[in-house]
Amino acid sequence: MQLHNFFRSSASYRVRIALGLKGLPFDYIPVHLSRDGGEQFAPAYRSLSPEALVPVLRNGEVSLHQSLAIIEYLDELHPEPPLLPRDPLGRATVRALALDIACDIHPLNNLRVLKYLGDTAGLTKEARDAWYHHWVHTGFSALETRLAHSHTTGQFCYGDQPTLADLTLVPQVFNAQRFNVDLSAYPVLGRIAQRCMQLPAFTAAAPGQQPDAQ
Amino acid sequence: MQLHNFFRSSASYRVRIALGLKGLPFDYIPVHLSRDGGEQFAPAYRSLSPEALVPVLRNGEVSLHQSLAIIEYLDELHPEPPLLPRDPLGRATVRALALDIACDIHPLNNLRVLKYLGDTAGLTKEARDAWYHHWVHTGFSALETRLAHSHTTGQFCYGDQPTLADLTLVPQVFNAQRFNVDLSAYPVLGRIAQRCMQLPAFTAAAPGQQPDAQ
Repeated sequence: MQLHNFFRSSASYRVRIALGLKGLPFDYIPVHLSRDGGEQFAPAYRSLSPEALVPVLRNGEVSLHQSLAIIEYLDELHPEPPLLPRDPLGRATVRALALDIACDIHPLNNLRVLKYLGDTAGLTKEARDAWYHHWVHTGFSALETRLAHSHTTGQFCYGDQPTLADLTLVPQVFNAQRFNVDLSAYPVLGRIAQRCMQLPAFTAAAPGQQPDAQ
Repeated sequence: MQLHNFFRSSASYRVRIALGLKGLPFDYIPVHLSRDGGEQFAPAYRSLSPEALVPVLRNGEVSLHQSLAIIEYLDELHPEPPLLPRDPLGRATVRALALDIACDIHPLNNLRVLKYLGDTAGLTKEARDAWYHHWVHTGFSALETRLAHSHTTGQFCYGDQPTLADLTLVPQVFNAQRFNVDLSAYPVLGRIAQRCMQLPAFTAAAPGQQPDAQ
């Protein structure tokens, strides 16, 4: 398997954690999102991803995109350890927590969006930072409330084993810290992220540990 | 079952189509996203959705959020007609197509984001419209390329039966049309959306058909 990805990309980081938890080896193919105007726009890469986004996972003839779809695919083919609960309600709960971040925080704050807000919409760095912080706080305060009140919250977002929700949370926490967002109002999220970082699959997948890290 | 939703919300529309295809009756509970400063911010609703987002599906003690998670839950409990293929690769393909819209187009263009860009970031209506169009064109041109080149594209996004991908595409097409986006460059998307609208579940779920439509 080859993972086309970028060390700092949250979506890439999610898939790296999944591959690590499943114990699946892979070739790391770096796609630098800002060097030379963005390697994701090169024609060879766009034949894999017309979206010009990372990650893409390849396995022989199979080529997959969208991190959450890739992770569910890996979980279906390699069920141990499971990244989703066995029951439909548990699965829906975990998927919803992951989508709370993957749909309602991350897309607003990724590189291409911040670039558009600066280059095209003409927002100052201050206004772009305010935008970034606003969506993290909006999303994280709802998620904190949800997890603080749910009886299914355990050591991790759902129970005492990591799931798709934790694989989505940790990269978003990392990203927010890079943008100096104060996360002290989110003790449950902080506790879970810390618990995750006790697992080798999470630490090995961290941006700073990747071959293209600068 | 009760669906807390809003006629014009794309995420609500997706779930209404799923309920229709499955033949599941539900009570329609309107949550008006702009009246009185937004009914989604009322404390009673926030006890269901700390995110202050629609839709929420309730069934007895069960309360579910995030449209794609709700649809997968319905599909697991009521497998006919299936909204995802049976094989892992097919499932990953359909999920990725749905996420192409649900993560990379829709979150950038929904009401709360357009409101922030106007009220807080101070963008003119012209600049907000340019933003809206930019992300629809970015997402739809990649999706058009992907579907035009894939051997799994049929009458619908994947094969000849509607899937989660179509349930996500149609509301986004509707939304783009409301913002006067020219979709003539996307003949495959247009053809699929037209095919979907031949099915009663899609037309009955359309915004204009809902009790809170204005």
